[in-house]
Amino acid sequence: MSSESFPAGEFGVRILDLARELAQWSEMQDGLMCTFFSPAHKAVAAQLRDWMGEAGLEAEVDPIGNVVGRYASRAPGAKTLIVGSHYDTVANAGQFDGRLGILTGLVVAAHLKQTGRQLPFHLEVIGFSEEEGVRFSAPYLGSSAIAGNFDEEVLARRDATGASLATVLRKDGIDFGDIQSLAYRRETLRGYLEVHIEQGPVLLQKDRPLGIVTSIAGSARYRIFVQGVAGHAGTVPMALRRDAAAAAAEMVLAVERRCSAAANLVGTVGQLRVPHGLINVIPGSCELSLDVRSTDDAIRDAAVADIRAAIDEIARRRRVTVTAKEVSRHRAVPCAATMQAAFADAVGRAGIEPFYLPSGAGHDAEMFAGLTDIGMLFVRCGNGGISHSPLETVSAEDADVAARVLLDTIANLR
Amino acid sequence: MSSESFPAGEFGVRILDLARELAQWSEMQDGLMCTFFSPAHKAVAAQLRDWMGEAGLEAEVDPIGNVVGRYASRAPGAKTLIVGSHYDTVANAGQFDGRLGILTGLVVAAHLKQTGRQLPFHLEVIGFSEEEGVRFSAPYLGSSAIAGNFDEEVLARRDATGASLATVLRKDGIDFGDIQSLAYRRETLRGYLEVHIEQGPVLLQKDRPLGIVTSIAGSARYRIFVQGVAGHAGTVPMALRRDAAAAAAEMVLAVERRCSAAANLVGTVGQLRVPHGLINVIPGSCELSLDVRSTDDAIRDAAVADIRAAIDEIARRRRVTVTAKEVSRHRAVPCAATMQAAFADAVGRAGIEPFYLPSGAGHDAEMFAGLTDIGMLFVRCGNGGISHSPLETVSAEDADVAARVLLDTIANLR
Repeated sequence: MSSESFPAGEFGVRILDLARELAQWSEMQDGLMCTFFSPAHKAVAAQLRDWMGEAGLEAEVDPIGNVVGRYASRAPGAKTLIVGSHYDTVANAGQFDGRLGILTGLVVAAHLKQTGRQLPFHLEVIGFSEEEGVRFSAPYLGSSAIAGNFDEEVLARRDATGASLATVLRKDGIDFGDIQSLAYRRETLRGYLEVHIEQGPVLLQKDRPLGIVTSIAGSARYRIFVQGVAGHAGTVPMALRRDAAAAAAEMVLAVERRCSAAANLVGTVGQLRVPHGLINVIPGSCELSLDVRSTDDAIRDAAVADIRAAIDEIARRRRVTVTAKEVSRHRAVPCAATMQAAFADAVGRAGIEPFYLPSGAGHDAEMFAGLTDIGMLFVRCGNGGISHSPLETVSAEDADVAARVLLDTIANLR
Repeated sequence: MSSESFPAGEFGVRILDLARELAQWSEMQDGLMCTFFSPAHKAVAAQLRDWMGEAGLEAEVDPIGNVVGRYASRAPGAKTLIVGSHYDTVANAGQFDGRLGILTGLVVAAHLKQTGRQLPFHLEVIGFSEEEGVRFSAPYLGSSAIAGNFDEEVLARRDATGASLATVLRKDGIDFGDIQSLAYRRETLRGYLEVHIEQGPVLLQKDRPLGIVTSIAGSARYRIFVQGVAGHAGTVPMALRRDAAAAAAEMVLAVERRCSAAANLVGTVGQLRVPHGLINVIPGSCELSLDVRSTDDAIRDAAVADIRAAIDEIARRRRVTVTAKEVSRHRAVPCAATMQAAFADAVGRAGIEPFYLPSGAGHDAEMFAGLTDIGMLFVRCGNGGISHSPLETVSAEDADVAARVLLDTIANLR
């Protein structure tokens, strides 16, 4: 196998420029927000399609909003290799979450096309329309359609204005059948590759530009409601209280304690709130969220079971009631050994020692697990590893080496 | 001394009827809310003034919105006995907090006037316009004006719409001088009595209709901001986190633990919130409130000092930063021994064994401490002692015995 040669640095600067340009379309005044089928979202899709077209790819926006750029192979019976990630964002987002992967795929495909490089498979760079789940509380809308596991039930989900996903799609003349028709068949696929920022501090701390993802953590998420008894902060003796916030506080610490007790496990209470809390009223209720993740489903499930038992014990002892609702549950997904090896070979040829790590975050790649071989390449995140924030950064140097490794990986894939 | 005689039950039913009638004016659709100088608030003031006038009292609404009903004495050099409480409410309030005291004073004054009973002092029933501090985060606006300690600085406080108290008063042609002129001079006062629901469970648990208040607890209130570092819930290992909500949870439990360790002490975190919290983001910040009360200022201050030390220790250990802002601090206020004795005598004459308790809640009576002798009579609260809630109840029987005791107390006061 040979390493592809091209001017070092060129790809990285181009990728950062394109990411900055895409960030001009936003639903927020002073930050980046781009959610499913908003005007900003449609503008970004059109721009990506135009860039793909200018790069010589066959480009189109599909009914669910995915932007697909195809560099066709002349090989008879060629399968398709997808290089994808998403272009929607959370509120007040960074410029690289999702988009880095699309733009890396784009500059690599453009280079292959411009240099006339023939591949034994069709290469499709896909910008998935939806991964974050912000607008309809339903993630992976774009990638699940392509992977053939779009759930019809999510059509009934409503956004903050009360409009259902079905209604929003119908306005553009799209129905469930159109989405179903996007599904790729297993036998037509060569694999799925995704470049993504790490969204964490590990590569930064280990001083590595890239990481090869071994598996994507599974997650279990809950919403927990604690119901105690409200009361006047001055008149109810401590021993007679049934304080919902104090009970919730114990639960937060129980989550932290249990999830610190095992490697390969994290647990987070990201939302915590006394509804209509007043400074002089004992909290009658408290709401909290729970997110538990591991790349090992058994480890995660054991932690969730222990946490639920701890919550029940706290509730009994404090005479409050607890309702826990499972919001979502995703199994851990391993990356294909063949794709990990393909990335590792290219990383090695770039003069870097391969470094492996699991992904704690979910990614579009999950949708393709079981359908085709998946591989993920993480790029170092600056600023302490912060993501989902305007402080999210990627260096041009790191983006460049990621593009070179992706190009080399694709060029050597058979 | 003699017990006043009048038909048992009559007063209680009347008081509950009047409270129900006042509750018709509200700023909320499906609940009671009546805050300073709202249309509902002005309607309640006008109604109270009309009822006082119909009862034969000299009635007027003063510049700060207090409704004053005067039953003048013919005694030369007579001083004034004030019977007061407030008619403003919190959001989604009960019908009795504050209003029970005004209406009890009203039916008693009406009875004295109608029966031609002469008193050695002027009797003034005052419905204070503001005690809860809801609209301008400044409590006791009405009673502080009468007591001569209205703080000019609160004129700059703004409501949720951004309007300052000064602006709102100026619209009605009222300035600081008008409010200052309301102050009663020490030598003109005979005393201050207040009937109020307990807003707690003690009388209910002790099976007592009435309680004589020994002192009003002092309070210290803080707003606490915890700043940690936000991060992706899946990608930041537990050991690297600086989770603001987990730190806040420890603080909540530290407050509870410390305030459970002493009698005559309560501590409450009524507000607790991760701003813009997301299920999959490690909390970067958390806000909480703290309210610590005791009828012994030294006990309260020792608890606050210990809690602050605990908070600092938690912050250091967890590498988060904490800002604590004192919102208010009120000294504990004893009720006058003479007034406690006067209530106790009347309670005894009503065939009830006197029962004494401290007030954990603040009351208008506090404003008059040091200016004149204050006395407070608590009335049993139903429904487990709940207050600041539509579930707040008082029975007609208890309201009746409270009115009879108040009448008897006033009739025997010299």
